[in-house]
Amino acid sequence: MTTRIEHDLLGDLEVPADAWYGIQTQRAVENFAITGVPISHFPPFIRALAMVKSAAARANRDLGVLPATKANAIIEACDDIIAGRLHDQFVVDLIQGGAGTSTNMNANEVIANLALEKLGHAKGDYQHLHPNDDVNRSQSTNDAYPTAVCLAVQFAAEPLEQAILQLKQQLERKGREFADIVKMGRTQLQDAVPMTLGQEFEAFAVNLGEDIDRLHEASRLLCEVNLGGTAIGTGINTHPDYKTLAVKYLAEISGKPIVSASNLVEASSDMGAFVLFSGILKRFAIKLGKMCNDLRLLSSGPRTGLGEILLPPRQPGSSIMPGKVNPVIPEAVNQTAYQVIASDLAVTLAAEAGQLQLNAMEPMIVYNLLNSMKMLESACTMLDERCIRDIRANTEQCAAHVNNSIGIITALVPHIGYANSTRIAAEALNTGKTVRELVLEEALMDEATLDQLLSPRSMLAPVAVAS
Amino acid sequence: MTTRIEHDLLGDLEVPADAWYGIQTQRAVENFAITGVPISHFPPFIRALAMVKSAAARANRDLGVLPATKANAIIEACDDIIAGRLHDQFVVDLIQGGAGTSTNMNANEVIANLALEKLGHAKGDYQHLHPNDDVNRSQSTNDAYPTAVCLAVQFAAEPLEQAILQLKQQLERKGREFADIVKMGRTQLQDAVPMTLGQEFEAFAVNLGEDIDRLHEASRLLCEVNLGGTAIGTGINTHPDYKTLAVKYLAEISGKPIVSASNLVEASSDMGAFVLFSGILKRFAIKLGKMCNDLRLLSSGPRTGLGEILLPPRQPGSSIMPGKVNPVIPEAVNQTAYQVIASDLAVTLAAEAGQLQLNAMEPMIVYNLLNSMKMLESACTMLDERCIRDIRANTEQCAAHVNNSIGIITALVPHIGYANSTRIAAEALNTGKTVRELVLEEALMDEATLDQLLSPRSMLAPVAVAS
Amino acid sequence: MTTRIEHDLLGDLEVPADAWYGIQTQRAVENFAITGVPISHFPPFIRALAMVKSAAARANRDLGVLPATKANAIIEACDDIIAGRLHDQFVVDLIQGGAGTSTNMNANEVIANLALEKLGHAKGDYQHLHPNDDVNRSQSTNDAYPTAVCLAVQFAAEPLEQAILQLKQQLERKGREFADIVKMGRTQLQDAVPMTLGQEFEAFAVNLGEDIDRLHEASRLLCEVNLGGTAIGTGINTHPDYKTLAVKYLAEISGKPIVSASNLVEASSDMGAFVLFSGILKRFAIKLGKMCNDLRLLSSGPRTGLGEILLPPRQPGSSIMPGKVNPVIPEAVNQTAYQVIASDLAVTLAAEAGQLQLNAMEPMIVYNLLNSMKMLESACTMLDERCIRDIRANTEQCAAHVNNSIGIITALVPHIGYANSTRIAAEALNTGKTVRELVLEEALMDEATLDQLLSPRSMLAPVAVAS
Amino acid sequence: MTTRIEHDLLGDLEVPADAWYGIQTQRAVENFAITGVPISHFPPFIRALAMVKSAAARANRDLGVLPATKANAIIEACDDIIAGRLHDQFVVDLIQGGAGTSTNMNANEVIANLALEKLGHAKGDYQHLHPNDDVNRSQSTNDAYPTAVCLAVQFAAEPLEQAILQLKQQLERKGREFADIVKMGRTQLQDAVPMTLGQEFEAFAVNLGEDIDRLHEASRLLCEVNLGGTAIGTGINTHPDYKTLAVKYLAEISGKPIVSASNLVEASSDMGAFVLFSGILKRFAIKLGKMCNDLRLLSSGPRTGLGEILLPPRQPGSSIMPGKVNPVIPEAVNQTAYQVIASDLAVTLAAEAGQLQLNAMEPMIVYNLLNSMKMLESACTMLDERCIRDIRANTEQCAAHVNNSIGIITALVPHIGYANSTRIAAEALNTGKTVRELVLEEALMDEATLDQLLSPRSMLAPVAVAS
Repeated sequence: MTTRIEHDLLGDLEVPADAWYGIQTQRAVENFAITGVPISHFPPFIRALAMVKSAAARANRDLGVLPATKANAIIEACDDIIAGRLHDQFVVDLIQGGAGTSTNMNANEVIANLALEKLGHAKGDYQHLHPNDDVNRSQSTNDAYPTAVCLAVQFAAEPLEQAILQLKQQLERKGREFADIVKMGRTQLQDAVPMTLGQEFEAFAVNLGEDIDRLHEASRLLCEVNLGGTAIGTGINTHPDYKTLAVKYLAEISGKPIVSASNLVEASSDMGAFVLFSGILKRFAIKLGKMCNDLRLLSSGPRTGLGEILLPPRQPGSSIMPGKVNPVIPEAVNQTAYQVIASDLAVTLAAEAGQLQLNAMEPMIVYNLLNSMKMLESACTMLDERCIRDIRANTEQCAAHVNNSIGIITALVPHIGYANSTRIAAEALNTGKTVRELVLEEALMDEATLDQLLSPRSMLAPVAVAS
Repeated sequence: MTTRIEHDLLGDLEVPADAWYGIQTQRAVENFAITGVPISHFPPFIRALAMVKSAAARANRDLGVLPATKANAIIEACDDIIAGRLHDQFVVDLIQGGAGTSTNMNANEVIANLALEKLGHAKGDYQHLHPNDDVNRSQSTNDAYPTAVCLAVQFAAEPLEQAILQLKQQLERKGREFADIVKMGRTQLQDAVPMTLGQEFEAFAVNLGEDIDRLHEASRLLCEVNLGGTAIGTGINTHPDYKTLAVKYLAEISGKPIVSASNLVEASSDMGAFVLFSGILKRFAIKLGKMCNDLRLLSSGPRTGLGEILLPPRQPGSSIMPGKVNPVIPEAVNQTAYQVIASDLAVTLAAEAGQLQLNAMEPMIVYNLLNSMKMLESACTMLDERCIRDIRANTEQCAAHVNNSIGIITALVPHIGYANSTRIAAEALNTGKTVRELVLEEALMDEATLDQLLSPRSMLAPVAVAS
Repeated sequence: MTTRIEHDLLGDLEVPADAWYGIQTQRAVENFAITGVPISHFPPFIRALAMVKSAAARANRDLGVLPATKANAIIEACDDIIAGRLHDQFVVDLIQGGAGTSTNMNANEVIANLALEKLGHAKGDYQHLHPNDDVNRSQSTNDAYPTAVCLAVQFAAEPLEQAILQLKQQLERKGREFADIVKMGRTQLQDAVPMTLGQEFEAFAVNLGEDIDRLHEASRLLCEVNLGGTAIGTGINTHPDYKTLAVKYLAEISGKPIVSASNLVEASSDMGAFVLFSGILKRFAIKLGKMCNDLRLLSSGPRTGLGEILLPPRQPGSSIMPGKVNPVIPEAVNQTAYQVIASDLAVTLAAEAGQLQLNAMEPMIVYNLLNSMKMLESACTMLDERCIRDIRANTEQCAAHVNNSIGIITALVPHIGYANSTRIAAEALNTGKTVRELVLEEALMDEATLDQLLSPRSMLAPVAVAS
Repeated sequence: MTTRIEHDLLGDLEVPADAWYGIQTQRAVENFAITGVPISHFPPFIRALAMVKSAAARANRDLGVLPATKANAIIEACDDIIAGRLHDQFVVDLIQGGAGTSTNMNANEVIANLALEKLGHAKGDYQHLHPNDDVNRSQSTNDAYPTAVCLAVQFAAEPLEQAILQLKQQLERKGREFADIVKMGRTQLQDAVPMTLGQEFEAFAVNLGEDIDRLHEASRLLCEVNLGGTAIGTGINTHPDYKTLAVKYLAEISGKPIVSASNLVEASSDMGAFVLFSGILKRFAIKLGKMCNDLRLLSSGPRTGLGEILLPPRQPGSSIMPGKVNPVIPEAVNQTAYQVIASDLAVTLAAEAGQLQLNAMEPMIVYNLLNSMKMLESACTMLDERCIRDIRANTEQCAAHVNNSIGIITALVPHIGYANSTRIAAEALNTGKTVRELVLEEALMDEATLDQLLSPRSMLAPVAVAS
């Protein structure tokens, strides 16, 4: 491998001759090998980094602290990266010491070398355009990195929201499809009162759909950035107008309503917006997990479980039990949900570990947020396409459950009282007789009224009754 | 002890003759003894339960499904309880099986007996007014209980928000008090660039203050209730107008903008709003913990630590080391924060455990939310009154740190470049010489400009410089 | 209230005249009001503290660093407290700043005043016998407190182990009672192959019983104490023979095989043994939770669930649905399990927060361990006495499930192959025919062999078959 | 791409012609794409799977239920895989639904096709040797998979234990190197009493070293396997001697003391051993994190922190602050520790989710355990090689801290009492005078004794003193 020599605070180091990154990236690659997941695994993050660098270059150019030639070369380089070029050059492990410095320098170095090329210089020829002095001009890792993270999380949230929306719509479709199938509702796994299978799926749809709004709201908190705060939020080494200009450019480039946080010292170490965002992801994971638990319960059987719905078979269920079909898709989603819940703990631990003017653990917050979103997106799509859309109802089983139920006695309470009803329910359970038989035996109501009250369809919504 | 006999589904049971609760409460007390913390530990929850019962009675009365005499007796009983009467009769352990049925029945029974008294009847004389048929009319635990929880959490949030506000204001006061004390900022525990101690405390204030807004927003989600959904959200055993009326009355009584959730089947099993609320409490706990970590770092010493601030001594610090004063108040707050973070996990686990039309684990969600809020409120007040307000600055130490620092070289980067600056910083560290000396030795700048740039005060905010 | 004046580093303070504790306890009570749970809530901890103080006094007496008169008075006072006297004087909140100093001083002060009484002096007359100079002689909070915690956890583990044992034996009894009831086993909630209900309960017994051994092993790690290490493990202010003597006495008094940790500097800040112990409690909670989940599944119904067992009714299940009986006891145990899992996180957070020579968060570790053990003990007893012992089998339902099952085709795989079996299983599911019918139709086996293979009882254990 | 057609329960599917895996693997690849981490990422797991298959084939051969020709071909195929062949054919995502069926079938299919080749048949020609009927003979996923996991975890633990051992030895070396450097110990970040820097590093070594033993003990619990239990632990479709034989062979092949669990029904669904193992990994992560926190504290500065040690610079610390060197290696380890702690929660959640006779979430338990071990191994090696071995002491700073300290007054307590000492300590703090000066001024001791007592070296261990 041919190499070139670069130099930094610690001395000289060989870098592959054709690498677009430089010495500091090289050191970081050698230093950190924890997850094996490089930055390039998350394109939204790379795009976000390039947008921040572009915005800074524009502001610096306007303020005269960076010559236009250099600035324009940097801006062009950023455009290339935003468009998808050189993503494979973002090679540092996402979990790294240094509060993101290695990621920031990876971006600075790739952009510098790409800009050098545009200016007709060789890679590493930093006297013409320097990763720190020029690309990182008016910036510190401590403002450029968190700002890029804020953007990256928003970018990654978009396809997730889209996947949730499609899942929600699928559930709504199923809700309509099953609108006329009456079944027993259950509370605490015990027979309760009638509902429709459609109501059950519609409730799933409403439940998950809410989190699209929550993600949106949490994203808005990520529009407050600390760009311009540099090292600790005091804005050292920036022009008084830099912050405003850079943020304005960033809003333009990103298409997001980016604004400056009200207190940059606070914003430099605060992980609160990420904690909140992670909490929403966890909330969604909890809901997704609960729904998959329900799907597995409702499809339990085929002969010895609830058996009210049939999940589409996706693969043979057992290496020993022929014909067994397992709810593999919901099971995989449940596991995804657990990973996301665990990731929220990782974010929590990292957020609590901030010290004084910075949180050095931010890289693992980024890793966990981006990873959770990617997994949830896959899980939603998998669940939609490989499970929900092909669920069928077991109409006979649903009907049999209702007809066989004691819980329907609930409808009689306003008429014969809680105490009477309780006594009859107990007798039904012990004797095997139906509620209807027993009420008529005791002549507690006339048959017509009784039949009307006991019709499951009349229990699906409030009804006006003569007291 | 004299007793009276009451009867339910399971048979007869003796209840203390003077107890305002009845047989189902008695059974629950015998069944559950896990935490030892009874409902009475949380007055906001009792008030909320009584408000729900009152709203239901009013709606039932208006709709003619409950005679006005009974309804009015119930409403009066509820008023008494809202005003603080008989709270000691809410005796069931907060953590209970049955999805809150025991708590709901504890309320129904106390209210029934109090209403019976108002009507001139003896305790337990339920043929005149019945806990289930009358007090619980048009309700199920599954809508009355969660609705009360939504209210209780909002009530309990108010003093917490107040305590946060006072803590925030105290921190702002300190921010102003310390506005002129220049000190070194630190990132990753390493010397960074200058700031003021005032900026540090102001950042704490801003950071914590944000969560008052977040709590407010999360409270708003708790205004959507499932009252009227009864057993599983279908509204069985309610009049078609009941839901609207009951919710309207509840809004009036509680003074909160209570509305009906858009889908009551969904709302019956959904714990999402509680998960989100718990996430905000956790977020605040993380911030509180981070601040206390900082306070302990900044006050470390007195001779071998950072020593930039002095916490007020609150008790002798050691049973063996005389004169030792420890940061006991922040330490207690840190531990509180850990408990709250752990409680959020308990809420998460409970929320994920919902099944089909209900979440049977809601009682422990309630327990953890109310307990966390109570602990956080105590912690904020303790921190404000017993620590923050009496913190003093160690001005000499702050100044010495700045004067001794190498980090101030950062201010020279725009002028002599990152590479030159790096070299000089390394030399300063190795030789013990100051940055100023070395720059002058190398004649990199003239003395006047240098002194202006190196003035710590000029580093506290952006400054326009000639490039 | 009459008071007496005491004095410490911070000045004078009034203490209730009849209080056996002194000024430092008083300050701590005023400083900390987080959980509201005082030390007195956990008698094993108080006994452990008194044992440590007694052991130290004996060693000090033997070494001549404490006059025998004083030492003996202290030892007598400790004996009284071990026997249960004055436990209500341990008034400090368990969660406290100061790494346990307040708890240690609470013990020192109560013992000092009790010893003073034995010597004929008034409370607070510390010139005759001093909480620090005499009771705390040769000790620091930093060794006395963790040593007491090690003992307290072991003491508290004993009734827990006993409760687990009784629960295990109850489950074994049920295993024998249900030994002949054949039912379908389920994997992934799908019908698998036959087993007995007795095997199911026996498995619960084995599963939970293992943790008695694990608790025992984890307790053994708690026998390594840092007594004699004083402030940071270097043993400052102790006689070279003190450590050995004190530990020997502590082993005698406690009846536990207490030994000195090999490295007291390490032992002073290490929370590893507590983390491990908490992990065992969590493991047990997970198992308990899983079993309760199973009990709720198996008893689901009565008409629309699995319905293979009947839990004893403990209270009416619903305020609206008459006759409903819910699995309230397992539900309460599930919630307890979640609390214990969450407490393990609290312990984790606290353990990670140790700094340099001490872990200041140890008080909340103590709180969570003792609290978890108490809750688990209650939960086991409740589950044993109020649920397991009265569970009945629904023999008919179990039999019907087996007869109706397709999963029994598994037994044919060694004879007709996986592919054939798969085809027939699918046909059975689609046509509603039984496996037996289809195999005979296809003449894949003779009837006698088939009937022998399909007998559920022949599937309960390995059988030799002709290949 | 050329393909071949394979067939299963769900119908036909194309598989790449040169794939060693078959149809069920292919389906699983299409079904699951959550983590993107395939089985091949963890070679110890693949070796373990092959060992289980080999042991089963040997037992089946001996019992005559599998012809020797087939058995030997399978055994040879397994040997190849154990030796490292075809690992890239283990392509299924580790997180999968189906309780590991896809992983088990991936193994069955690759082994079948490799065995077919050895017998001279084409890939997919399963009538000669079948993945289910022959390779999976006498097995279910539900025993083969967990058994392989038990082995895989043990295999993966070995290099981790080795990495911990090397880290421990490095710390011991540093302990010896720093044995003579006296410094102040700190409790609660406040100055305590003297110790040596060597004692501090030695304590780290002891602390981490203990977990090698704990990992060993936890591994022993993983030697109890459920092989032979097949579908639900009843051993259906196995010969009565199979279990004993298969386990004996597995012990031989693996070199581990594998034994049969005492109750296979229990063992089939029990995740307890994994929970315990995960708890040990978490415990180690907590310790590693605490040590890294300490390293960052002790190296804080260079000018405004504790500054007692110097970490080797590994990369420039800042993109804006020249000369800044950050503790990047400990920071990366801290983040790794957080991930491992979070993974323990994932394991906890999955373990609690077991239902009835199986835990369908086991795949994510495997994923988290193997991933955590891999990350911890990397972290230990990184910490050893890139940080600990090159740490240098700042001897001057250590000495200055001791000389400047008030905490040394602790040594006088046995001589002048706690009250006197407290008073003098307070005066020293207020006046800036030294303890020595003040004691002499008050003539509390003679100068010679005082100087002996105040010598820091005399405070490093217990000393006999005249009382």
